[in-house]
Amino acid sequence: MHWSQFFIPTSKETPKDATAASHVLMLRAGLIRQVAAGVYCYLPLGYRTLRKVEAIVREEMNRAGAIELHMSVLMPLDWWQQTGRTEAMGDTLLRLGGPPGDWRSQTVLGPTHEEQVVDIARAFLGSYKQLPINLYQIQTKFRGEARPKSGVLRTREFLMKDAYSFHADKASLDEGYQKMYDAYCRIFGRCGLPYIAVEADSGPIGGDSSHEFMVLTDAGEDTVAISENGDYAANTERATAFFEGHRDGETPGRSAESGQAAAEPLREVHTPGAGRVEDVCKVLGTTPAQMIKTLIYTVTQPEPQASARGSASEPQAPARGPSAPVSRLVALVRGDHDVNEIKLRKAARQLCGSANASIDMADARTIEELTGAKVGFAGPQGIVERFRAGDMLVIDRDVTALRNAASGANKTDYHVTGVNPGRDFPLAPDDRRPYVLVADIRMVVEGDLSPRGSGSPIRLKTAIEVGHVFKLGTKYSDAMNATFLTREGKPARFIMGCYGIGLNRIVAAAIEANHDDNGIIWPMSIAPFEAVVIALDPRDDHAMEVAAGIYNELAAMGVDVLFDDRDERAGFKFKDADLVGIPLRVVVGKKSLAEGVVEWSHRRDQVKHTLPPAQAAGHIAGLVRAARQTSAALS
Amino acid sequence: MHWSQFFIPTSKETPKDATAASHVLMLRAGLIRQVAAGVYCYLPLGYRTLRKVEAIVREEMNRAGAIELHMSVLMPLDWWQQTGRTEAMGDTLLRLGGPPGDWRSQTVLGPTHEEQVVDIARAFLGSYKQLPINLYQIQTKFRGEARPKSGVLRTREFLMKDAYSFHADKASLDEGYQKMYDAYCRIFGRCGLPYIAVEADSGPIGGDSSHEFMVLTDAGEDTVAISENGDYAANTERATAFFEGHRDGETPGRSAESGQAAAEPLREVHTPGAGRVEDVCKVLGTTPAQMIKTLIYTVTQPEPQASARGSASEPQAPARGPSAPVSRLVALVRGDHDVNEIKLRKAARQLCGSANASIDMADARTIEELTGAKVGFAGPQGIVERFRAGDMLVIDRDVTALRNAASGANKTDYHVTGVNPGRDFPLAPDDRRPYVLVADIRMVVEGDLSPRGSGSPIRLKTAIEVGHVFKLGTKYSDAMNATFLTREGKPARFIMGCYGIGLNRIVAAAIEANHDDNGIIWPMSIAPFEAVVIALDPRDDHAMEVAAGIYNELAAMGVDVLFDDRDERAGFKFKDADLVGIPLRVVVGKKSLAEGVVEWSHRRDQVKHTLPPAQAAGHIAGLVRAARQTSAALS
Repeated sequence: MHWSQFFIPTSKETPKDATAASHVLMLRAGLIRQVAAGVYCYLPLGYRTLRKVEAIVREEMNRAGAIELHMSVLMPLDWWQQTGRTEAMGDTLLRLGGPPGDWRSQTVLGPTHEEQVVDIARAFLGSYKQLPINLYQIQTKFRGEARPKSGVLRTREFLMKDAYSFHADKASLDEGYQKMYDAYCRIFGRCGLPYIAVEADSGPIGGDSSHEFMVLTDAGEDTVAISENGDYAANTERATAFFEGHRDGETPGRSAESGQAAAEPLREVHTPGAGRVEDVCKVLGTTPAQMIKTLIYTVTQPEPQASARGSASEPQAPARGPSAPVSRLVALVRGDHDVNEIKLRKAARQLCGSANASIDMADARTIEELTGAKVGFAGPQGIVERFRAGDMLVIDRDVTALRNAASGANKTDYHVTGVNPGRDFPLAPDDRRPYVLVADIRMVVEGDLSPRGSGSPIRLKTAIEVGHVFKLGTKYSDAMNATFLTREGKPARFIMGCYGIGLNRIVAAAIEANHDDNGIIWPMSIAPFEAVVIALDPRDDHAMEVAAGIYNELAAMGVDVLFDDRDERAGFKFKDADLVGIPLRVVVGKKSLAEGVVEWSHRRDQVKHTLPPAQAAGHIAGLVRAARQTSAALS
Repeated sequence: MHWSQFFIPTSKETPKDATAASHVLMLRAGLIRQVAAGVYCYLPLGYRTLRKVEAIVREEMNRAGAIELHMSVLMPLDWWQQTGRTEAMGDTLLRLGGPPGDWRSQTVLGPTHEEQVVDIARAFLGSYKQLPINLYQIQTKFRGEARPKSGVLRTREFLMKDAYSFHADKASLDEGYQKMYDAYCRIFGRCGLPYIAVEADSGPIGGDSSHEFMVLTDAGEDTVAISENGDYAANTERATAFFEGHRDGETPGRSAESGQAAAEPLREVHTPGAGRVEDVCKVLGTTPAQMIKTLIYTVTQPEPQASARGSASEPQAPARGPSAPVSRLVALVRGDHDVNEIKLRKAARQLCGSANASIDMADARTIEELTGAKVGFAGPQGIVERFRAGDMLVIDRDVTALRNAASGANKTDYHVTGVNPGRDFPLAPDDRRPYVLVADIRMVVEGDLSPRGSGSPIRLKTAIEVGHVFKLGTKYSDAMNATFLTREGKPARFIMGCYGIGLNRIVAAAIEANHDDNGIIWPMSIAPFEAVVIALDPRDDHAMEVAAGIYNELAAMGVDVLFDDRDERAGFKFKDADLVGIPLRVVVGKKSLAEGVVEWSHRRDQVKHTLPPAQAAGHIAGLVRAARQTSAALS
């Protein structure tokens, strides 16, 4: 490809509002153009890389025995009502605009395709003989992200590889899941990404267990907890820390260590205006780790959706009816800990038995009504006496180990000391208060220990999620009544896995992990071109002839090569080459030709080498072949 | 690929509501599954073919020097208001659903990408040195088709290759257009389609001139006019017939032949209840070709749209304001002809000078008001005397050649004879009646003569449109003020071409043109597999071993081969193979093996040949190579 005939609109300016390195460099190198918030056009150079990523993903999915199809973007809202995900997805699920009753208002744009693939399975996978099977696609997805950001990292339109596996039993699911896990390792390895796999929360996709594939970089919006010795890695949405009473089934609150202190009586202390934990600690002369933070939430349980709803003739139901029952939930964590709302929501769902229950921070009125005090003075002691039917108490495990803790007094401008779990608030349900649960509901913090019991401290790092594998179980086959006939001829629900990769994120993560101040440093496998030949002065006929000769030779040898034949200054061309980041560079100029050589270099180290023009193409092609073999060896 | 591990849900049942052969066979052969009206999922076999088509399109576009990028589906409504296409597209332009003012209600789904590509051009193509350039993409498009039909032929979601070329002058556009025209011939040829290129109307895309690439088949929804000697082919939306006065610039109505008859006076005849042409002819003793049909339309000129409209804070404008000025238009065609509303709309736009004017059949009240008679008795004589300012008279060329014609009397239950153009109604504008135009406004009919003057009669055939090339000119660069700097350093508007191919339609058209009662007969180049090896009885170990050996050999030779290893009856497997339509078939069975041979056949002729198993793979691979070379020779 001749640069002069191609379309690479590079720019010297750092774009406004772009902070992530990948975002800045993708715009500056002419890979993408922003169309709207969270919507990008892939310009020719960017699209070349995206297609190379796509080819690697496809190759490894096929190698793993997955079968490619192509589902539709548009699909009936009705399916999403069957699985309850109109609720779970909220505004993320985009619909077409149209008058009520019109086909458009009953049509959604696929943000993911569990519903559609289950509909295919229930139509065509009638027998256990057809299982296991893994169906995948590489397709544009649409999501109504409220806050798109970081360039192509969080967008409203993106390219995704999504795969769905169907199994007759759990052992087969485990096997299929492992196959995908291995394929993902090959894919990210071949794309040149320094990735790690971490335990993950399943989010609105649901299911039993899942792993995320993460690239550690400051630009990421996920945080992962990694133990120093590497025996544990998890998304902080899910990460858990070592807990003494955790592994041996001991009753919470009765571990040997915490049993040592004698229980003091409750004592009220006047703490006017001291709402924050640090302020209270000063007044009480204690530490946050000896305090109990008492947080009040509301829990909303949506009405189960009638499956007939969503037919074309009926108006669309509001997302959450005014009649949905609302309970109050009191969550207790240590003063130096924060609530993990994903864990807390799970606890709430477990307590109330509603898989779609949602939690929100309570407003001031609700808090004052429950505690009898202004916001900032809530405490656990005696709080269950004020419960109405349906209210819940969820206690973080670490709280159970406290003795003589401090807390709000449920009285404006007062705190208490001498709070003792089990004595001042229950640690287990009884007949009058069925909704009490001890659980891990907190965020891990730096310095927590690995839950593996190795004593290795946990560190927190930001990361980009590039892939996610889930064991779904029967969540979707239950909701959509998708069955096959077993060997015994009985109908059974499909056991499913699902497996996603964000292709645009691979591109961005590769740049985050591979760049310097001057531009991108592409891994060979996904570089838009493998090599670039630069003719320093296109008006110098001899140099142009030599450069064109090397370019033609490389192309004939099957190297994906770009020829910078532009009539521009040498400095300008070098800056562009650095920015665009092609791995191998050959420079043909009058001066070095006079010495009988051309220069070549790697973009990564930029060390200049020379060789005779006649050997240039052969040498560069050899380097490209070697890099391809290294990548292929990962398969 | 082993059939038993693959996913080809074939069916014996002819699907309800499917009439087109391609629709029936794509469903029955397990290529697609319907998701909603006009929305299909491509199952693995169908997607293999679609991707082969995609590869051919991409290869030929690249060969023609076009540069691939990937624009976004979502884009701002604002762009479409700038080009006036919210109006022109109407409900075809899909939007996201959201409250007014929300980003979603200001976002459309791309049905085509002129707006977005022009936005790219105006941002990055600053100089004549960057021209000409042709940018293309292969992308899913969305259109709110009111009546999706014929399977994948008319859908709401489809895969399109759309290319856009930018030029500094018309000569360069002509050259770029021809390059695309030639590339299209190679693409359709390589896909095995019996296509023809026809002159076409530009439709809502607009522009100066265009060609459609058509595959003649009963399932098509387009009609093309083709002269018997092949010197003329055009879509009937645009097709024109030979007209004596047409080629030599003679004044209409004064051709030698028609001048022979003496003009008779107007005479009223009582024709109670005779509203239709045939009825009137009976009463008057004349023929439809001697009558003038007088049709009344209304012409609506939309207000020009303010370009600031569409910002997020303003509510969306109604499609057509109540204040849009409405005129009446009288159209005259011969009694045996029908009005071509596309031609008539052009004439109306020319007369009123509004590029967005639309026409509609007038309602009864408007007709009665203008003619003074009930519907069915309109006539041209004296009608302009009843015109208000802005009303229009458009006369088909063929009407000008009539003498002593019959027509409605503008009096209920009466017709007139002796109507003479020029005497009884004007053939040219004057000061009082500026809106008079003679033009070709009719549909061609079978037996019309080729406009090339060869005297060859025109035949009408139905066809599937698979591609469309347009010379756009400056329509979009004008509307969006997209300019480059000329060699002289002056800003000038880009001159554009645009070029579309419907990839799903290629698949359907290939099936329409290549099938028999038993199923599909794929052209080798786009077949989901090139060859199928059928093991007749998988429980026969020896036959299975021989079959697997041939399959493995073929795969190793690079043949795209399917292995039917299923434990099913032979007849069932043959039926499936016929239905699915793989071009080459090798059958391995006990009986023929006993004779030292295996059978092979072409799907097209199904003639059975035999050869020793050891030669089978080599022979089949040779046939595949030959077919590939034939296809490559078209490039």
